[in-house]
Amino acid sequence: MGIEQIPIHVDNGSDGLSGNASAILREVADMLDRLARTGETGAIDLAALPLTPADKAWLSERLGKGEVEISMELNGASRIHETAYPGIWWITHLNPMGAEIGEFIEVTPIPDMVPSQSDDIVRGSESLNFLINDLC
Amino acid sequence: MGIEQIPIHVDNGSDGLSGNASAILREVADMLDRLARTGETGAIDLAALPLTPADKAWLSERLGKGEVEISMELNGASRIHETAYPGIWWITHLNPMGAEIGEFIEVTPIPDMVPSQSDDIVRGSESLNFLINDLC
Repeated sequence: MGIEQIPIHVDNGSDGLSGNASAILREVADMLDRLARTGETGAIDLAALPLTPADKAWLSERLGKGEVEISMELNGASRIHETAYPGIWWITHLNPMGAEIGEFIEVTPIPDMVPSQSDDIVRGSESLNFLINDLC
Repeated sequence: MGIEQIPIHVDNGSDGLSGNASAILREVADMLDRLARTGETGAIDLAALPLTPADKAWLSERLGKGEVEISMELNGASRIHETAYPGIWWITHLNPMGAEIGEFIEVTPIPDMVPSQSDDIVRGSESLNFLINDLC
């Protein structure tokens, strides 16, 4: 089932749950199963889905927290944590003022944005060689 | 030059620098150059080398801090930060009491211990399917 086929509920019960969180949890489980079997990675843009605060809290609680936390400072901060299920990561992007501007679940051994990128490694290597030449 | 060929100085100047830190910085620059050109990764075990506290501080200051910080809780904490040179990571392992038990420089797009491991992903997928079956 693709993310676009997740059945969307709009009626909130008294607990604030719309019914969408459990559909997303099932989709995440399918994605993790695909990652385990085939290595295929995936992501869900939580902001693109009609989730209530109670839905997000329910989803976050079910997925739990794992061993790894990552913080990145680019143009605003990003906070990433591994969930209790290795291969499922929860990612929150903030703007420079600290307001949340994006929230994703990524299903992958490591979220794409974390490893050093090839171009940056090449530029870093050149800079470090300059530094070393200056030290001599 | 392999790490075993780094010339080791044992005389400390008045600044506490032994001369070893600049040799290690050169080795790290060579490793980053190899990573940029061939994708070959490498690591230096700082505890295995005769470094004074001043040497470590000098090395840490030259390498600086980059955009990414990672903390892991396994059997004791590990703290990892990207240096100002993408592809060079500084890793400190602590025991459960918080005492430092290992310090490494890894030259790699992402340190080996950070990505979720295949076996753990498979086990996580099984656990998540159990959870979902319980919810139904």
